[in-house]
Amino acid sequence: MVVELISVGTELLLGNIVNTNAQFLAEQCASLGLSLYFQTVVGDNKERLESTIQLAMSRSDIIILTGGLGPTEDDLTKESVANVCELPLVLDETTKIRIEQYFKNSVYKEIPESNWKQAMIPNGAKVLENNNGTAPGLIVEKDSKTIILLPGPQNELYAMFKEQVAPYLNQMQPEIITSTTVKICGIGESQVEDKIKDLIKVQTNPTIAPYAKTGEVHLRITAKASSEADGKKLIKPVVQELKDRFGIAIYTTKEESLEEVVINLLRKKGLSLATAESCTGGMLGSRIVGVSGASDIYKVGYITYSNKAKRKCIDVKKDTLKKYGAVSKETAREMARGGAFQSGADVCLGITGIAGPNGGTEEKPVGLVYISCFYNNSIYVEKYIFKGNRQKIREQATVKALDTIRRCILESK
Amino acid sequence: MVVELISVGTELLLGNIVNTNAQFLAEQCASLGLSLYFQTVVGDNKERLESTIQLAMSRSDIIILTGGLGPTEDDLTKESVANVCELPLVLDETTKIRIEQYFKNSVYKEIPESNWKQAMIPNGAKVLENNNGTAPGLIVEKDSKTIILLPGPQNELYAMFKEQVAPYLNQMQPEIITSTTVKICGIGESQVEDKIKDLIKVQTNPTIAPYAKTGEVHLRITAKASSEADGKKLIKPVVQELKDRFGIAIYTTKEESLEEVVINLLRKKGLSLATAESCTGGMLGSRIVGVSGASDIYKVGYITYSNKAKRKCIDVKKDTLKKYGAVSKETAREMARGGAFQSGADVCLGITGIAGPNGGTEEKPVGLVYISCFYNNSIYVEKYIFKGNRQKIREQATVKALDTIRRCILESK
Repeated sequence: MVVELISVGTELLLGNIVNTNAQFLAEQCASLGLSLYFQTVVGDNKERLESTIQLAMSRSDIIILTGGLGPTEDDLTKESVANVCELPLVLDETTKIRIEQYFKNSVYKEIPESNWKQAMIPNGAKVLENNNGTAPGLIVEKDSKTIILLPGPQNELYAMFKEQVAPYLNQMQPEIITSTTVKICGIGESQVEDKIKDLIKVQTNPTIAPYAKTGEVHLRITAKASSEADGKKLIKPVVQELKDRFGIAIYTTKEESLEEVVINLLRKKGLSLATAESCTGGMLGSRIVGVSGASDIYKVGYITYSNKAKRKCIDVKKDTLKKYGAVSKETAREMARGGAFQSGADVCLGITGIAGPNGGTEEKPVGLVYISCFYNNSIYVEKYIFKGNRQKIREQATVKALDTIRRCILESK
Repeated sequence: MVVELISVGTELLLGNIVNTNAQFLAEQCASLGLSLYFQTVVGDNKERLESTIQLAMSRSDIIILTGGLGPTEDDLTKESVANVCELPLVLDETTKIRIEQYFKNSVYKEIPESNWKQAMIPNGAKVLENNNGTAPGLIVEKDSKTIILLPGPQNELYAMFKEQVAPYLNQMQPEIITSTTVKICGIGESQVEDKIKDLIKVQTNPTIAPYAKTGEVHLRITAKASSEADGKKLIKPVVQELKDRFGIAIYTTKEESLEEVVINLLRKKGLSLATAESCTGGMLGSRIVGVSGASDIYKVGYITYSNKAKRKCIDVKKDTLKKYGAVSKETAREMARGGAFQSGADVCLGITGIAGPNGGTEEKPVGLVYISCFYNNSIYVEKYIFKGNRQKIREQATVKALDTIRRCILESK
């Protein structure tokens, strides 16, 4: 089946934001075995939006629209779809009640008048629940075409697609698509591709597709079969082959993030964790705390951004800072040890580096980061040089730090 | 003049990469005063590519295509444009020489046969030099339409656009576009819109467009005029009107983030900052450290995720935790005070809350967050209930924390 994406939003046309939603949906459609031939971005303009919907309906089976479902007058997606499909907008009682509930405990004293617009739906549309916002998702069936309207905010879109839209699309398909993602950390994209060139060349069913993420590479294996069980049977030997080739660099073959893997590993081993961050400034702690239930494991994080804090909170010696500098192997080592000692945690991860754009020298360039890990009475330290802007360098350091915890525990004798 | 973007590449349709080129070009076009109404992504398929080009030529004045200019058989952009415009492909001697030069100093011993394809251009096209790769950029003029073909790799595209395409487009334009963004924090999107409904209704030049961000609303005011100075004159009274309506809720009218505003305000007042985070787990610290130069101001962050850490690092009393709980006004108050005392910082922000999805009760539901701020020997504490998933609740708390620092300092007597 042929699917088409329409992203609605003037902020995309003005270049205010990157269209990450389109990438997410394209990736999801690929993993569902749908053929995506066109993506269009159109602004909050009724005439152009309607002509775009008409064109999509003339050449694709499934049209997925994102954005323009908000409460403001600029939000025209639902109205335009209703108009093109010649369906009246009617009040959906369930959505009305959900909006009331949503506002009940919020910071708002009363529900803004404009929000009631969100309870109106094209007559006969299937409503998709939104647990993260007020705009409902909608599925409209018209002339053997399926039109799916989804909210633009990322957290609303992602949850709604995975929980409600993907199963809906899967049951429309003649063949069942099954996929598994093998997640790799610590090897670059081109190295990963070189290692599996031969597999990609001969692939038919299942297929292998690499996706580069910050500090990670994901390999998605997708099989078409008459049942999920048969699909899994096709995938299993491929996963085994990848495990043989990449070994410990594969951190999971499940739908879990690197930080979830780390927290689960620590829990399984009965270990507690502390962090001592400088250049990442809490980014590592924030990713760990992003895992629900991390509080069993994660005790404390020290964001020791100043030298004084490094000395006072986690016992980095004045002499060490003076002799080697804040960004050095020696300081990183003392950060991990001091953080572990002060917190009493079993594992402590230290990060110190130069995120730029200023502060780099020839000897210590922007991107230089030391990552240390205290575990089992020994301290591991490694030096890295990351590329990119301040944010990108900090993100890469954070991923590498998570992977360092994982590898230190797994490789410890 | 109306411009349209066409991104060519199957890797975009599969979701392998994010379309950052489209954002770059969209932003460049906006700053050149061009109206961008459509962006399309299409794969390396002759038929679909040609129909996309034809459609674009029927509704836009300038069509910018990126990608598909490489040497392989998959690269079809130039051939498709030539075909639609009914122009023969002819050898461009200058480009042929440039390709020879390019390979001379490269790692390749001889020029791959396929690269000569890149020296073929639609008859009469203007050639744009590529100093970073082999594919030339091209400008084709046909039936009063301008078609611009640019390479896909980012370093080739950005340089070619800025150095050669932007000046070319600028001299085609009669009017200059100027815009200003008014950034608001602490008021919801629909409430903001309700407050400026009358202004939006009568807008012609300048126009006002709201953009909802997490915890923020941005209003972009855009004017068309014969010069930038005239554009600014049109924008000024609108900004003043918005300032009158929203007061302190406007945190900036410049191109700066909330954390930059907070850091600059602290610097101006000569104040140092510490943070004491629980549920946000370092997200606040990370945003602050995201500002280059924050190290002058930001001394230390305590991620006190456990009760023990709250007691040990920032002096929260055992009795307070026992009597009121970790998520309470009282604990928040002691976090801000203890963090300030331990760090010696002038300002200390405290956050404690329940990010969910577990841990909520009827009395203390998921989303409950207390934010406290120690400043000037007094402690401000406020209770919030945020909506959304774990990530969203933490993001909203972080934005609110930044805004709390700003307001505490500005409103302090």
